Amino acid sequence: MLRTIFLLSLLFALSNASVQDFCVANLKRAETPAGYPCIRPIHVKATDFVFSGLGTPGNTTNIINAAVTPAFAAQFPGLNGLGLSTARLDLAPKGVIPMHTHPGASEVLFVLTGSITAGFVSSANAVYVQTLKPGQVMVFPQGLLHFQINAGKSSASAVVTFNSANPGLQILDFALFANSLPTELVVGTTFLDATTVKKLKGVLGGTG
Amino acid sequence: MLRTIFLLSLLFALSNASVQDFCVANLKRAETPAGYPCIRPIHVKATDFVFSGLGTPGNTTNIINAAVTPAFAAQFPGLNGLGLSTARLDLAPKGVIPMHTHPGASEVLFVLTGSITAGFVSSANAVYVQTLKPGQVMVFPQGLLHFQINAGKSSASAVVTFNSANPGLQILDFALFANSLPTELVVGTTFLDATTVKKLKGVLGGTG
Amino acid sequence: MLRTIFLLSLLFALSNASVQDFCVANLKRAETPAGYPCIRPIHVKATDFVFSGLGTPGNTTNIINAAVTPAFAAQFPGLNGLGLSTARLDLAPKGVIPMHTHPGASEVLFVLTGSITAGFVSSANAVYVQTLKPGQVMVFPQGLLHFQINAGKSSASAVVTFNSANPGLQILDFALFANSLPTELVVGTTFLDATTVKKLKGVLGGTG
Amino acid sequence: MLRTIFLLSLLFALSNASVQDFCVANLKRAETPAGYPCIRPIHVKATDFVFSGLGTPGNTTNIINAAVTPAFAAQFPGLNGLGLSTARLDLAPKGVIPMHTHPGASEVLFVLTGSITAGFVSSANAVYVQTLKPGQVMVFPQGLLHFQINAGKSSASAVVTFNSANPGLQILDFALFANSLPTELVVGTTFLDATTVKKLKGVLGGTG
Amino acid sequence: MLRTIFLLSLLFALSNASVQDFCVANLKRAETPAGYPCIRPIHVKATDFVFSGLGTPGNTTNIINAAVTPAFAAQFPGLNGLGLSTARLDLAPKGVIPMHTHPGASEVLFVLTGSITAGFVSSANAVYVQTLKPGQVMVFPQGLLHFQINAGKSSASAVVTFNSANPGLQILDFALFANSLPTELVVGTTFLDATTVKKLKGVLGGTG
Amino acid sequence: MLRTIFLLSLLFALSNASVQDFCVANLKRAETPAGYPCIRPIHVKATDFVFSGLGTPGNTTNIINAAVTPAFAAQFPGLNGLGLSTARLDLAPKGVIPMHTHPGASEVLFVLTGSITAGFVSSANAVYVQTLKPGQVMVFPQGLLHFQINAGKSSASAVVTFNSANPGLQILDFALFANSLPTELVVGTTFLDATTVKKLKGVLGGTG
Repeated sequence: MLRTIFLLSLLFALSNASVQDFCVANLKRAETPAGYPCIRPIHVKATDFVFSGLGTPGNTTNIINAAVTPAFAAQFPGLNGLGLSTARLDLAPKGVIPMHTHPGASEVLFVLTGSITAGFVSSANAVYVQTLKPGQVMVFPQGLLHFQINAGKSSASAVVTFNSANPGLQILDFALFANSLPTELVVGTTFLDATTVKKLKGVLGGTG
Repeated sequence: MLRTIFLLSLLFALSNASVQDFCVANLKRAETPAGYPCIRPIHVKATDFVFSGLGTPGNTTNIINAAVTPAFAAQFPGLNGLGLSTARLDLAPKGVIPMHTHPGASEVLFVLTGSITAGFVSSANAVYVQTLKPGQVMVFPQGLLHFQINAGKSSASAVVTFNSANPGLQILDFALFANSLPTELVVGTTFLDATTVKKLKGVLGGTG
Repeated sequence: MLRTIFLLSLLFALSNASVQDFCVANLKRAETPAGYPCIRPIHVKATDFVFSGLGTPGNTTNIINAAVTPAFAAQFPGLNGLGLSTARLDLAPKGVIPMHTHPGASEVLFVLTGSITAGFVSSANAVYVQTLKPGQVMVFPQGLLHFQINAGKSSASAVVTFNSANPGLQILDFALFANSLPTELVVGTTFLDATTVKKLKGVLGGTG
Repeated sequence: MLRTIFLLSLLFALSNASVQDFCVANLKRAETPAGYPCIRPIHVKATDFVFSGLGTPGNTTNIINAAVTPAFAAQFPGLNGLGLSTARLDLAPKGVIPMHTHPGASEVLFVLTGSITAGFVSSANAVYVQTLKPGQVMVFPQGLLHFQINAGKSSASAVVTFNSANPGLQILDFALFANSLPTELVVGTTFLDATTVKKLKGVLGGTG
Repeated sequence: MLRTIFLLSLLFALSNASVQDFCVANLKRAETPAGYPCIRPIHVKATDFVFSGLGTPGNTTNIINAAVTPAFAAQFPGLNGLGLSTARLDLAPKGVIPMHTHPGASEVLFVLTGSITAGFVSSANAVYVQTLKPGQVMVFPQGLLHFQINAGKSSASAVVTFNSANPGLQILDFALFANSLPTELVVGTTFLDATTVKKLKGVLGGTG
Repeated sequence: MLRTIFLLSLLFALSNASVQDFCVANLKRAETPAGYPCIRPIHVKATDFVFSGLGTPGNTTNIINAAVTPAFAAQFPGLNGLGLSTARLDLAPKGVIPMHTHPGASEVLFVLTGSITAGFVSSANAVYVQTLKPGQVMVFPQGLLHFQINAGKSSASAVVTFNSANPGLQILDFALFANSLPTELVVGTTFLDATTVKKLKGVLGGTG
């Protein structure tokens, strides 16, 4: 009994020293450059470290026949400050995750089902493309343009992980054609012709 | 034609500026604190960014009925310097990945098949345990003791990702019982009795 | 006089550019992944950078005959954001700092008095143990299990420093036996027998 | 005299402790993830910290009427390991630095001469465009698509700085059209039509 | 039309995943060790990424015949969290930026006009001095004492960039002579004689 | 027996995954920006993690009546890559560690014996000075000018720790007066008079 008391006092003394193993995001507070402020440890529950939204395929009934379901800090507050996030890719037949970058993270992709042709282009303009089967892993270096495309006739899926809780996602077509960036500037900075730009702006809801 | 030449010269000029998007490890060279030296970009192939060793279950015919198949920089040189690595967990019925830590990385686990009870203990000594189904994700903060255990009657498997190309892996039982750490020191620093320590040293091949 | 005015105006102009040499923690505000928000520089005093709690031995009248007195950001707000913290170890005769890890930092130990046997186990399961005299220094790599034990007949003490303002401290026995982690899970993940686990839970105040 | 000797011995003693303020690159040695190995401090000269290649405009007689002159680690070995690099932009009338990213760095641009319309697109697809005059500064967050275009009738120039010694440079058109990335993959991942892709591949020297 | 709707829903779904490309500082909120909290992305405007205060020379009518105009996070909130800042140096004839350090950043200097003699001293006490012309670049490693001095007969100017949004600026003479550091301590720690110290304290407005 | 074999095979399998908990410096190889290349783990011994050079006072028979004994990576290769280093300060009566900076690290000081007046000056030119007794700790933010002076009549000593294996050490007087920096430049950048500069150059062995 006495031993227990001694030990417990030791325990509490030492525990005082132990903070911030984790920092579950308080999404209502303003972000900082290092992520969201933490909720108090006393309010943290085991379920804060679990995310259940990647268990079912995303809705691929769309123009790209594909879906990206993110589990970044905004969706999965438990990984705030831990330097990791994840997402699920679903590719229906003919599905494609269009050319895109993650400005703040490298990515590891693990194929769950189907066959996926994935690739990236380096700063030196070299092309690295591979067709992957379930269980194969591919790594995409930070910030480089890359894509994933269904290489088979059935659905394909993958889980991807990033070394940032907020990797960002910049889809090339959206960046060029789905906003108010003036057609003249798109033409001038991509060498595409105005007709092509205007057509894609039309499809993607862009203006200007 | 002239245009092409102009552009190509521009291309080569600009490409000179572009180095080290990646650093595929030269495993024959001495490591540095930041990882292995890189092989020359000209020798890098698309296959360097793909790892195929996680597609099949590891051998679980062992005392823990489980297997960890790592894809760290030493196995998957393409992720050297990119701040990420991955591994596959296989848990036969009654399988368990024993209590362990990764000294240098946080971890995200995605359940592929079966049901897994996973948990970790914080510095403040709080316990966070959850039983996960396929598609569920759990995050384990850096350096904390954690475990995974098959919660079902069939096999289970998961893919895990770390935010380091060299996360390390310290298995508690091996650290305590599978080396030459003297029994007296193990007893003195864990409060286990000598009989228990010696028995486990026997099972795990430890000495001292 | 005129010179002074010119210089002072220069001084104030330049000083505007100079912020956040330090970030004394406002412990009342929610933490962020990078530490606590700062109090305003105007409220910072010289005494904020001094900690006086390590000058006297901690209370070693307990089951481990030892004490750890931390000076982490929570106790010593002046080192918030500076990437360093410190602590004092006191070991009465037979005293031991049990097997533990710091999830977020490497550690340097400097022996003040007495003789200390210290050691750590690597990810590769190698054992590094040394007995140290006053003035000797030992370094413990981040996140690895390590311990310190009084190697002499008189009291021993040491000052330790970490390269994080919040290194964390996970004591193995407390993580396993001093909380609600179910006996079944402890047994399953450590290969200890239930009797041993229950006994240590009893001593350390654990449940389950 | 005696004082000098004492002091000099102190000096040398202390200087031994002082290494690696800088790490001038040995470009002949294999890179590491943190940069090139250093040449010995004894071989370092003041001129290693100076780069003279940005003093004159780059050659803008090309299809983009523009030039980027980099001073990255490969051109300016003195900034290896220091986390900074720089470059000069020259834009003849109608000149444009086409849509591009720097995968590993944020960028600050300072306009030297002329008028430049610069902009970037965020992950959230928002457009930030401004027309800048000499002396104005614009910052481009890491990894996002951005561009610079001559907004006047005379030549324009700028100096840009990156917070990496190897920021990388990925020019969108080159990544899509100036390599062997198959037309089918470009079409599939960008929604451009094959005719457009083939035409630009022709202009830019791409194949496939 | 339907396509557009599908795509837009995709767009918004994906955009949810995209946060914190940037973190424009809310200067009214308490700083954190990683910088200021961010204003909400919806309030961010293109002008937040532009700073116009470096376009005109600073006022050099002062004792040093020189001016430093900073664009650090406090002046240019758009670069908060981006790891970069910039400043302008103006040196009238005989102007000098006195011996100083930036405790938290390395620096790249680009000469705009005139001729500047710049130099730094390493930890190993070596001196690296060069006289620079317009367009020449010099790099100053983090934390080392350095200076810039007008080497010509006309005005000189430069733009400098730091790899921190808050590099700090410690001017040697101000640190020693323009505050309340007691003369006795200055004498004792610099080997200057008290007369010199008191004289400079007088000129620079110091006390003690 | 069979169990042991199974476990051992598991052990070796898992151990393969575990690298670079530490990186004991190979001082004969060229440094990299992240530190020295590592010696092979198989050659690492427990004594590599111990440094014995701080146990006895440094020689204070010199002009400053003080000594700094460093245990940086060059002296203590075991802490290469671990982000920490340490040193011992000895101050005879009237001893002083003159005004200096560590360009690459913050510092924690723990007083061992005697009484020490220590202080630093911030970028904002504020002075933070305290007189410390044994057991008191003071923290010095990265890169700022600071000093330690014996405040008592007997010897004093302290152990200091840095959050870098290579913190650097720039002593103000040596940087200004103990090298070839021309008197004219020292005068011009410090406002000291030439007589003072020449005198100190004479004492400290400087030229120019």
